[in-house]
Amino acid sequence: MSHSGREVQLHSYPNGEVRTADFQVVEAAVRDPRPGEVLVRNTWTSVDPGLRLRLNETSPAGYFAAFPLDAAMDGIMTVGQVVESSADGFEAGDTVWHASGWRDYAVVDAATPALSGLGTLTRLDTEAAAAESYLGPLGAMGLTAWAGLFEAAALRDGDVVWVAAAAGAVGSLAAQFAKLSGHRVIGSAGSDDKVTYLLDELRLDAAFNYKKAPLAALLRESAPDGIDVYFDTVGGDHLEAALGALRRHGRVALCGAISQYENHGPAHGPSNLFQATANDLTLRGFRGSSNLHRMQTMQKQVGEWLRDGQLVYRTTVVDGLERAPEALVRVLSGDTVGKTLVRIA
Amino acid sequence: MSHSGREVQLHSYPNGEVRTADFQVVEAAVRDPRPGEVLVRNTWTSVDPGLRLRLNETSPAGYFAAFPLDAAMDGIMTVGQVVESSADGFEAGDTVWHASGWRDYAVVDAATPALSGLGTLTRLDTEAAAAESYLGPLGAMGLTAWAGLFEAAALRDGDVVWVAAAAGAVGSLAAQFAKLSGHRVIGSAGSDDKVTYLLDELRLDAAFNYKKAPLAALLRESAPDGIDVYFDTVGGDHLEAALGALRRHGRVALCGAISQYENHGPAHGPSNLFQATANDLTLRGFRGSSNLHRMQTMQKQVGEWLRDGQLVYRTTVVDGLERAPEALVRVLSGDTVGKTLVRIA
Repeated sequence: MSHSGREVQLHSYPNGEVRTADFQVVEAAVRDPRPGEVLVRNTWTSVDPGLRLRLNETSPAGYFAAFPLDAAMDGIMTVGQVVESSADGFEAGDTVWHASGWRDYAVVDAATPALSGLGTLTRLDTEAAAAESYLGPLGAMGLTAWAGLFEAAALRDGDVVWVAAAAGAVGSLAAQFAKLSGHRVIGSAGSDDKVTYLLDELRLDAAFNYKKAPLAALLRESAPDGIDVYFDTVGGDHLEAALGALRRHGRVALCGAISQYENHGPAHGPSNLFQATANDLTLRGFRGSSNLHRMQTMQKQVGEWLRDGQLVYRTTVVDGLERAPEALVRVLSGDTVGKTLVRIA
Repeated sequence: MSHSGREVQLHSYPNGEVRTADFQVVEAAVRDPRPGEVLVRNTWTSVDPGLRLRLNETSPAGYFAAFPLDAAMDGIMTVGQVVESSADGFEAGDTVWHASGWRDYAVVDAATPALSGLGTLTRLDTEAAAAESYLGPLGAMGLTAWAGLFEAAALRDGDVVWVAAAAGAVGSLAAQFAKLSGHRVIGSAGSDDKVTYLLDELRLDAAFNYKKAPLAALLRESAPDGIDVYFDTVGGDHLEAALGALRRHGRVALCGAISQYENHGPAHGPSNLFQATANDLTLRGFRGSSNLHRMQTMQKQVGEWLRDGQLVYRTTVVDGLERAPEALVRVLSGDTVGKTLVRIA
């Protein structure tokens, strides 16, 4: 049986801000799976700010490779259903995740680990949680938040935690994981509505709109005695404010820096890094995909929190594969709450 | 018996580069020790680049306080001989260290810990090593190098280590400690003479003059497969080059940033901090004085290396207390090799 389907391709490297015109949607034939492969009908695909780093001619050294032009974009997490399997251990009807998103159909090699292992073809337990939650709290997002708090920041009893972009996909999880683990948690975001969400729905201890006053003052008001941990998805001025507020032996989990992704000059490094020396601070960069060994532990605990209703999780759903570029533009503009997903079918 | 002696005072906060005219030498009466105190005739005192941070109206938050104007400068490590003791456990003739340097005589309270404990009045074993070596490899410098490598950078078997300012006081110790612990060590410095010193006397595996070519290229030549640890006393472009060369799970020991000390605008943060996220890097700030619990272990090992002649150590000696400001200016200009000491008497 032969298929054809749409795929989203990058057509030109954005010059400054990403525009939907940088992408194109192409109808392409889908070949049959060879031995060891499965054919998947994709149903949900992920839209992450980190994709921005791969929309340049070269991506940062050590990071996932830049997307080639006019070709399917590899390495984007997706959930779908197996249509046809020529691989042991998978059969038609299985719900799976893999890393060949932003297209209707994908032919996936079951044996080849994708992108540091995260995104390797995996059957999902849809009785434990909805399929799309594996693109959110039970997947890469959850693992990133988990690894940032418990591995990179090595969260300890009594730590006061600041999570930037706390209404965002990873931030909202990190803030709640810390809160559910018994910590005092301060969240920040870029609108009053988001601040209300942080206080009323995520039930954080304090929250502020970073656009309302100088960051250092807002942070001092929410955490008069300083902070011990900063979960950084923003960089720039946020990281500087954190370095100024961290107490001795404080820790920063460097998860990526959305404030720098659209920046084409040299990125703005923190001007007060000397605070790290003065106060014995640790800054630790990390990638969720470097922490696959923590996936099971995370899924077990977070799955429980989800079923108990203790974890709040908001998703921005965009309908239609052809709107994936538009969804990415919105994510990069900060105009979304929680995780953005595209529903393909 | 009453004494009087000279002390060096800060007279004005330097406007840009430090000049000797910012200081004054004053003759002052020295009071007799009260119960619990000793009177010390200082013999050697320390000249450290970090003093620069205290020559402004405010020092960085969390760091040692700024020096007040027209007063004795507290918190500078010094070695001397007890002249008169009114404190249990000390007697005339003892060689001690304490933190009241840059003056001929000091009255020191034996019971009060000085500056995080480092500099608290301590009797020194001058049979094990020369008195002045306690202002170098067996004191704060040694502890800083030791803590940076073994605590902050958590040195592991097989690590390739880059030490910046490797002809400097702390750098030359860090480079040799790493080398004597079995690592491949690359050193950098700012002149060809210093590079010769690094290769011929410290016997490092590779060395380069950072003024000769772009840092990234020089580093790539010395460490074609990248580095695992960077010992940073420079900051700025050196830290950026390190972030670009560090392999996965690499570590940076942030010891202070001499390139920023004279800088009065906002300091220049690394523009490529995202490398930390991309490659799971850890940047750890630290102060030697936060690692007093490692002092004994350090002194034992480093004392052995010194006695065996395995550790090379160069000192720039400036004669005369009145020349301490001039010595500091030279240290800040990079125009010294090894540790700079002032011989007072």
